[in-house]
Amino acid sequence: MTSILEQEIREQPEVLRRLIETSADQAQAIMDAVRGKFNYILIAARGSSDNAARYAQYLFQIVNEVPVALATPSVFSLYHKAPKLEGALILGISQSGQSPDIVSVLEEARRQGCPSVAVTNDPNSPLAQAAQFDLDLQTGQEKAVAATKTYTASLVAMALLSNALEKDKAAFAEIQRLPAQVQEAVEQTMQQTSRMERYRYMQHGAVIGRGYNYSTAFEVALKIKELTGITTVPYSSADFLHGPVASLTAGYPVFAIAPQGVMAGDMAAIIAKAKAAVAELVVISDLQELLSQAQLPLHIPHGVAEWLSPIVSVIPGQILAWQMALSRGLDPDKPKNLSKVTETL
Amino acid sequence: MTSILEQEIREQPEVLRRLIETSADQAQAIMDAVRGKFNYILIAARGSSDNAARYAQYLFQIVNEVPVALATPSVFSLYHKAPKLEGALILGISQSGQSPDIVSVLEEARRQGCPSVAVTNDPNSPLAQAAQFDLDLQTGQEKAVAATKTYTASLVAMALLSNALEKDKAAFAEIQRLPAQVQEAVEQTMQQTSRMERYRYMQHGAVIGRGYNYSTAFEVALKIKELTGITTVPYSSADFLHGPVASLTAGYPVFAIAPQGVMAGDMAAIIAKAKAAVAELVVISDLQELLSQAQLPLHIPHGVAEWLSPIVSVIPGQILAWQMALSRGLDPDKPKNLSKVTETL
Repeated sequence: MTSILEQEIREQPEVLRRLIETSADQAQAIMDAVRGKFNYILIAARGSSDNAARYAQYLFQIVNEVPVALATPSVFSLYHKAPKLEGALILGISQSGQSPDIVSVLEEARRQGCPSVAVTNDPNSPLAQAAQFDLDLQTGQEKAVAATKTYTASLVAMALLSNALEKDKAAFAEIQRLPAQVQEAVEQTMQQTSRMERYRYMQHGAVIGRGYNYSTAFEVALKIKELTGITTVPYSSADFLHGPVASLTAGYPVFAIAPQGVMAGDMAAIIAKAKAAVAELVVISDLQELLSQAQLPLHIPHGVAEWLSPIVSVIPGQILAWQMALSRGLDPDKPKNLSKVTETL
Repeated sequence: MTSILEQEIREQPEVLRRLIETSADQAQAIMDAVRGKFNYILIAARGSSDNAARYAQYLFQIVNEVPVALATPSVFSLYHKAPKLEGALILGISQSGQSPDIVSVLEEARRQGCPSVAVTNDPNSPLAQAAQFDLDLQTGQEKAVAATKTYTASLVAMALLSNALEKDKAAFAEIQRLPAQVQEAVEQTMQQTSRMERYRYMQHGAVIGRGYNYSTAFEVALKIKELTGITTVPYSSADFLHGPVASLTAGYPVFAIAPQGVMAGDMAAIIAKAKAAVAELVVISDLQELLSQAQLPLHIPHGVAEWLSPIVSVIPGQILAWQMALSRGLDPDKPKNLSKVTETL
């Protein structure tokens, strides 16, 4: 029987195609309206949406040269303090649009007269209502508890907003290639699922990415945690060298998110260190010299632009987490102790 | 034989006393010079210093109502992009002052004419040289690889800068009480070390804190990782409920950083969930009702103001990590695979 999670993983190419076709103009209208009204962006999000925020942090800083802060929602919702938001564009990301702490940040933005944008999968949600502008993910209802299609859709929404600020048509053409690339990543990884039983008894591990794919490391670790209960820790390759490298021992599982681009050299160095320690290597990449060092190489298609690579490189991670749940006899649609909408103050 | 790490843990009250006495005026002069010249703060740091930055993120937002962004140094050092820093005060934290990626952020601040402050333990370091202002931690050389006294000194430096911006004398008196409170925490925890052999075979765990003590959760997890190689994952109590709560099983080790204050209710809820799952609980707190639920209660003194509590609540965590190393026959002064100065680009 096909799980809902598997269906939603497979829906992603279509979901992203629809989002790009129908929301590019909306993203352009939003960014035209706020252009020149901010000198930095403050993003409020939790869970998988917070990983989308991590992606946005690199995206807006590198592509748009706009500094990005990640909000600490409890400052607003529990300490009841309202940082002075002058100069900020406030961005709230939440598939449900329900989490009260995220809503409280957007409400404060409105009170202070700051421009604000909600990115949600429900235009009637409190978050969408609190924001000045709303970008609707339109993924259709996400029923599996572990977010997949709303995650990649949130990333594409960020890419559309960033691109709208630059009005870069060549870059927009790269966004348009994403649905086919995601499709290819899904298909290539599905051919590898039998190999994933190898991790039936894995108890811990590190997921390492840097730059744009720091977000992917966090999201893959979160999927594994949600679907199997197993703790893997996300690190940037730089932070990993500041201490956690001590955990590299024979057989220690290292998941390296290593697509081509600026960070490939850094990731190659991590892979070499893991190799020297006889660690276990899962490599998600389009680079043959990195893939060839892995016990489990997970290919992504060639030609994905680095700034969009997190949308493709997360796919093998989603599928691996789902297969790890199956190999342990767990129901991927009903992870233990979790509910779909988590309302935190 | 006393380890260098133990000596440096025990030095902390004296180090903090010296820092507060000799640097309060310097912090005041710095903040007077930059007052009104920024509408948000951007902090660049790595490793333990990044955990000090996490503390500062809550501190400046709650006490000073100034938004705080944590820099992603690779944007500057590897992607070679320079976000437009208009409106930002740039703060670099690094005990060695050597890490090239952190230095690159401060150099960019200078190029763009932004106010900048370095917080280091070496006034001749590249970081101190690159910044407009330097606040010297004056801890004396830190020889143990795992940072302890430079960590608490960095937190106190943040508290001094925040306090200087407010010119709040009652709050300054609270800072002055810290050395005695840290002393008491050291002494109380040292009486508990024999109980810590309990964690001889611990393989994983979660360290949970929220708000001001989100930083403490990260720093305690990092100490355990550096000194034992064991992975414990830091979470905010809110993020823990968005997925990782799935890992709560009988015997799963949960380290709860739960001093009195706004977050005590949230932490009580986490402790109750852990209790219901028959998880193993280590609680760092001054609240008897939370301590009494722990297999290992670690007391901190009463009367520490919440905004300063991370400087005291990290102490039992440092001592626990050190004892975990000893019980495993590891040398706390020479953790495997680590060097004192980590230079990352």
